[in-house]
Amino acid sequence: MDTGNEEDRVKTRTLNAYYGYSRSARQSLIEPRIKQYQSLSPANQAVVSDIIPPKIDALESCIRVNSLFFTEVANGASELFEAPDVNCWTPATVTDEEKMLATLKQITREWTLEGYRERNQSFILLTRALCMLFPLLDRQIEFGPLEPGDIDLTEVIPNDIIQQPQESRRSIRVLVPGCGLGRLPFEIFLRGFEVQGNEVSYHMLFAASYFLHSGITEQRKIHPFIHTTSHTKSRYDQLRSVPVPDINPTFVDFDSDYLGGMSMAAGSFDDVYGKHNKPSNALNYDVIVSCFFIDTSANILQTLRTMHHALKPGGFLINFGPLLWHFEGHTSDELTFSGGLEFTRDEVWTLLTRTGFQVVCSRSDIKCAYTANERAMGRFIYNCEFFVAVKV
Amino acid sequence: MDTGNEEDRVKTRTLNAYYGYSRSARQSLIEPRIKQYQSLSPANQAVVSDIIPPKIDALESCIRVNSLFFTEVANGASELFEAPDVNCWTPATVTDEEKMLATLKQITREWTLEGYRERNQSFILLTRALCMLFPLLDRQIEFGPLEPGDIDLTEVIPNDIIQQPQESRRSIRVLVPGCGLGRLPFEIFLRGFEVQGNEVSYHMLFAASYFLHSGITEQRKIHPFIHTTSHTKSRYDQLRSVPVPDINPTFVDFDSDYLGGMSMAAGSFDDVYGKHNKPSNALNYDVIVSCFFIDTSANILQTLRTMHHALKPGGFLINFGPLLWHFEGHTSDELTFSGGLEFTRDEVWTLLTRTGFQVVCSRSDIKCAYTANERAMGRFIYNCEFFVAVKV
Repeated sequence: MDTGNEEDRVKTRTLNAYYGYSRSARQSLIEPRIKQYQSLSPANQAVVSDIIPPKIDALESCIRVNSLFFTEVANGASELFEAPDVNCWTPATVTDEEKMLATLKQITREWTLEGYRERNQSFILLTRALCMLFPLLDRQIEFGPLEPGDIDLTEVIPNDIIQQPQESRRSIRVLVPGCGLGRLPFEIFLRGFEVQGNEVSYHMLFAASYFLHSGITEQRKIHPFIHTTSHTKSRYDQLRSVPVPDINPTFVDFDSDYLGGMSMAAGSFDDVYGKHNKPSNALNYDVIVSCFFIDTSANILQTLRTMHHALKPGGFLINFGPLLWHFEGHTSDELTFSGGLEFTRDEVWTLLTRTGFQVVCSRSDIKCAYTANERAMGRFIYNCEFFVAVKV
Repeated sequence: MDTGNEEDRVKTRTLNAYYGYSRSARQSLIEPRIKQYQSLSPANQAVVSDIIPPKIDALESCIRVNSLFFTEVANGASELFEAPDVNCWTPATVTDEEKMLATLKQITREWTLEGYRERNQSFILLTRALCMLFPLLDRQIEFGPLEPGDIDLTEVIPNDIIQQPQESRRSIRVLVPGCGLGRLPFEIFLRGFEVQGNEVSYHMLFAASYFLHSGITEQRKIHPFIHTTSHTKSRYDQLRSVPVPDINPTFVDFDSDYLGGMSMAAGSFDDVYGKHNKPSNALNYDVIVSCFFIDTSANILQTLRTMHHALKPGGFLINFGPLLWHFEGHTSDELTFSGGLEFTRDEVWTLLTRTGFQVVCSRSDIKCAYTANERAMGRFIYNCEFFVAVKV
């Protein structure tokens, strides 16, 4: 029975993917290995009998641990997101199931010590830029000294766009589109801003709500790297567990004067903030912080217009990210056709100008990874673009 | 009409992919862009009318240039590989067509100046190791000084495996499995060895034969990067042409005393050199040089056994490459099932021992790219393993 609306369908498909992780993970990870092992000749089996069967057992244990975690997340989410009666749930698609593996990696990036170095390749630059643009009266220096490789923003951001120092940042409204599991808006919130995170994926939203709202009192464990055997030196590198979360946001005293405010908005960026959907001028954000976001757009023109609409005049767009167009090559299905609008970096800059922005400063070729396994024998390295643009 | 044997079918499917490049490239690259542009509102079209239509025109020109080149390669190949009558050709599959894009990139890696730096991240180490293991009487130093980042092989390769200096290397038989377009065996040949390259893919073999045998007298042009818009800073980076080949192998005086001999063998490594197929001891190679090869195996145990079979006792396996298991995740189709035998680096070493090899020296984490666009805003960086193993 499937009687819900489209929103409920996506929600319950995602819940099914969370609850069904154990089954789908066994199917993609365990069964091929059992089948392949059984297909070996007895002589070949003997050569690897102390390698493959113990590894399969270990992988099964890891799947159970991950599954416990995902079940806990889904339990909280089905309540918080008001899932309909379980008899009305829509089955998960294969894509929904595959997204669980990306969710595991995203959790590692955002909410573990393991992901600290990687996420800070972008988060530190973005939060420093924000704090520089909106200085406080009583705190001139908010960051430690630059480390080797850090970009010195005092050499990047022109003085004339830096705002007057204020007593507090609670009146500065920051929007973080495509915020994933909410760590970046949380870091911005910790620095005293009034921030809203926006995310369209329920896979992300469920886990985000777990970290931001569940009030867990001790760390859990996940095995984020079990689903990739390539690029692996040792069994430990693949099987090791990672404690999660590295900090507990709900320990934070949300009423502290030093902190800002934080909220999350579910839905696509254009739906939630677009001109057609939100014609009012109630949006009025001072800053949009986009991190690994603009290239996820199926129509960058529309995305830039929505950004422009959501900002106050003179508001800032602070961007960090690559140009890995997520919809490039998505041309197989007429109905979901969305490829073809991939622009180069230079062209994006032209479009920024044409949609009412002025790029005031930038840095290119900032190398960083995204959801990489630090111990892997290979990773994709992005040469990212950092820029600050002003709504003119 | 399709009456050929399986070999002819693969051969003619590949020829069709070469000849059909223009059509398939238009389909994947041009048509989505036209369709997407036409689907924009007039207002949006106006914003990008000086960006998208000129780019589409430029891409069409580039496709024509690439197509000319591929047609020339296919003309030579259909003769050299004795293609059956064109009425009996098998149509190219989508995969055959997609492999043309990989072929473009592989050509750039192996036979252009553009690919010089990238291929030498592995080729220099491998050829130096070979030359160190088989020194010549009259040439103690064959290489220039080490450059920053180069590995000093005198600190890696133990003295006791270095062979007695000889007058010539023509008696040293080297096998290069999975040799792609033949540049690595060619470099080994230039250093005086008797080398055989082996390759299973007709996409590769056709282009390899073009570079090694066609006797072209001037450079051609290709546009290798047009098929990726992601990670692109400027239109130039995507559209630029690259002269090919950087050197013309057929200019070489193949009868020179300083050079070795060179041949190419078409077919899968196991088929051409495996015990079941070649029970004779006529193989007797002194060295196997495997570069980005062992992880392409669907059954590494079988591959290691074939390597062992093909080597003389005491023969060397010199390996450079990552562990990106090409068949990982290939589990969807029962008939072509081949995933599940992905081993970690440590496990591969265990299997080396168990199949009759002894690893005598190694270096880990040698960073390099493979068929990357040097000007792109991102690339996969492999941490490669280099090792020398001896058949015991």
